[in-house]
Amino acid sequence: MNAGEVVGVDLGGTKMLLGVLDPDSKVLWESREASTGQSEDELVEMLVREIEEARGAHPGVEAVGLGIPATVRHDDGVAVSAVNLPLTDVPIRKLIAERTGVPVSVDNDANVAALAEHLYGAARGADYAVMLTIGTGIGGGLILGGEVYRGATGMGAELGHTVIEIDGPACQGNCPGHGCIETLASGTALGREGRAAAEREPDSVLGATLADDEQIDGKVVTEAALGGDAVARGVFELVGSRLGVALASFANVFEPEVFVIGGGVIAAGDLLLEPARRELEARALPPMKRIPVVAAELGADAGMIGAAAMARIDLGREG
Amino acid sequence: MNAGEVVGVDLGGTKMLLGVLDPDSKVLWESREASTGQSEDELVEMLVREIEEARGAHPGVEAVGLGIPATVRHDDGVAVSAVNLPLTDVPIRKLIAERTGVPVSVDNDANVAALAEHLYGAARGADYAVMLTIGTGIGGGLILGGEVYRGATGMGAELGHTVIEIDGPACQGNCPGHGCIETLASGTALGREGRAAAEREPDSVLGATLADDEQIDGKVVTEAALGGDAVARGVFELVGSRLGVALASFANVFEPEVFVIGGGVIAAGDLLLEPARRELEARALPPMKRIPVVAAELGADAGMIGAAAMARIDLGREG
Repeated sequence: MNAGEVVGVDLGGTKMLLGVLDPDSKVLWESREASTGQSEDELVEMLVREIEEARGAHPGVEAVGLGIPATVRHDDGVAVSAVNLPLTDVPIRKLIAERTGVPVSVDNDANVAALAEHLYGAARGADYAVMLTIGTGIGGGLILGGEVYRGATGMGAELGHTVIEIDGPACQGNCPGHGCIETLASGTALGREGRAAAEREPDSVLGATLADDEQIDGKVVTEAALGGDAVARGVFELVGSRLGVALASFANVFEPEVFVIGGGVIAAGDLLLEPARRELEARALPPMKRIPVVAAELGADAGMIGAAAMARIDLGREG
Repeated sequence: MNAGEVVGVDLGGTKMLLGVLDPDSKVLWESREASTGQSEDELVEMLVREIEEARGAHPGVEAVGLGIPATVRHDDGVAVSAVNLPLTDVPIRKLIAERTGVPVSVDNDANVAALAEHLYGAARGADYAVMLTIGTGIGGGLILGGEVYRGATGMGAELGHTVIEIDGPACQGNCPGHGCIETLASGTALGREGRAAAEREPDSVLGATLADDEQIDGKVVTEAALGGDAVARGVFELVGSRLGVALASFANVFEPEVFVIGGGVIAAGDLLLEPARRELEARALPPMKRIPVVAAELGADAGMIGAAAMARIDLGREG
C-alpha cells in the first residue's frame, strides 16, 4: 500500500515532466519526455505510456493530475484550445481516465503552478494570491479564499489577457485582443523591446549582439541586464513598469495578500520586480499600494507539484 | 414577532434610502433623508435616528445592512475612505451596532447592488456575475461562486480602477491611477467627451447646448443621444467601446456568466451596451466573446435591497 500517492504531470509546449508524489509532495519517481512535434493521438499515447510506467513502479498511485498550457474547461476536463500543442476540444480527462482506470484532474498549467506556490511556495499562508507565469506568454493563476479560482466553467484566470493599452499592439496566439500584458510584458516583449533598444544604441551590449547578427530574445536581454548593461536594464524598466500597471489593476480588483511572479523571465529577479513594485505603489488605490510582489519559489517543478496537489484535492485528501 | 425582518440602508453621497424588508425582500417601510453636507458625527446620528424610527414601526427587526459609497473593510466594518462622504477610517459597524444593539453589516454600495441583482435582478441564477454601477464614478461588484467577492480584507472589487490606457488621463477621487475606466467610461467621461464633441460640431444638438452656455454632463449627452443626435450617439460609441475593452479583460479574468451594467448612465440602454458588446466580442478570448451584457433591473432600490440581503446572509438566514 502506498496510500495517498498521486501522479503529477506538467505537459509543456516543448517537454513533459511527470512525477509520482507522496502526500507530503515528496517526489518518489520522475520522468521527462519531449512533447514537441507530436499529434494529438501521439500526445495522449505518450501520457498513457508514461503514467502506466510510473504506476508500474508505484502501484499505489490513486489519481493523476495534469497541467497543460491550454484553455481548460476544468468541469469536464476538456482542453478547449492551446497555442503550442495540438489540443483543440480534446476531452483529455476522459481519454486518460478511460485508458488508465484512475481518476484524472486537468487544469491550466498556470493554475496548478499557483496552487503549488500557495501550498508549498511563495504564497504559502496566503488565501488570496495572484500569480503570473511569465515566459513567451503570460499565464495567470488565482488563489481566492484559499482555492484555485477558475471561473464559471473553468476557463477563467487568463490574466495575461488583461488590456493595459487600448490601442496597443495585437496580442499573440489565439487572442484577438490588443495591448494585453501578454504582448507588452512577456518574454516576447523583452525580446522585441531589446531589439528596438539595440537599434537605438549600437554601442551597448545589446547593440553589439545585434551587430554580430545574433538573435535578441528575452534570455539575451536578461543576461545583458544581469551583466550590468544599462540599455538592457532600461528594457526591464519599461517591461517591469508595464507589469506593474497590470498589478495595480489586479490589486484594486482582487485585493490579494501577495503577487507571485514566476516563469523564465523571473531569472532577472528584482530587475523586473522593482519597476513593477514602483508602478504598483504609484497607481493602486491607497490601501492596496504595498501588496508584496515576490518571485516564485518552486521554479520548473511548480507545474508538476501543483498538478499532483490538484489530484489530491479532487480526491478529497487535501484543501 | 416579525422574524426575519431587517433594515437595509443605501447611504449615497447625496441621499440616504432606508427600508425595512421582510424575508422575501418586500419593502414594509421606507424613509429618505438628504446626506449632503453633514459631518461624520451628523451622518452617524442620522443613521441611528432613522434606524431607531424604523425599529419603532417594526420592532422585530433583527439586523441592519448598510451600503456606503466608500472603500469598506468588510471584516471589521470600517469605512476606510470615501470620495463623497466624510468617512475616513470610521468604524461604522461598531458605532451603529453599539448605539442600536442589533447586528450591523457594512459593505461597499456597489457590492450590495451586485448582491441584489444576483438574488433578485438581472444576474438571478448566475453564480458568476460581474456588475458595474456607472454614474459619476464606476463601482464594481463581483459574485463569484454564488457569493460576494471582497478580497483579503474586504476592500477589493474596485473594478472602476482597472486601467485600459497606460498613459491615459489622471483618475478621480482618491485614485492615483491613470487611464482607469472610472475616468474613461463613467458619466464624467460622457460629459467630458460630450463637451469636446460639442466644440468640434457646433451644428449638433450638443453644439447648440454649448452655444447657449448650458452645462454638458452625462445626462445632457444621454438626452441628446436618445433624441437621435448623431454626435451624442458618437460619444456613446466612444465611451461604450472603452467599457467593452474593460469587459474583455474581465471576461478573460473572471469568465462570468453575465455582465450587469447599472447606475445612472444605463438610462441610455443599448446606446451604451451595444458598442460595449461589440468590443467584448472583438477582443475577448474565443470562449468568452459572447458573455451577455445586460442592464441592471432593480434601479435605485438595488443598494437598499442588497444591503438588507447582506444583513440576512450575515445572520445565517440566506445564501
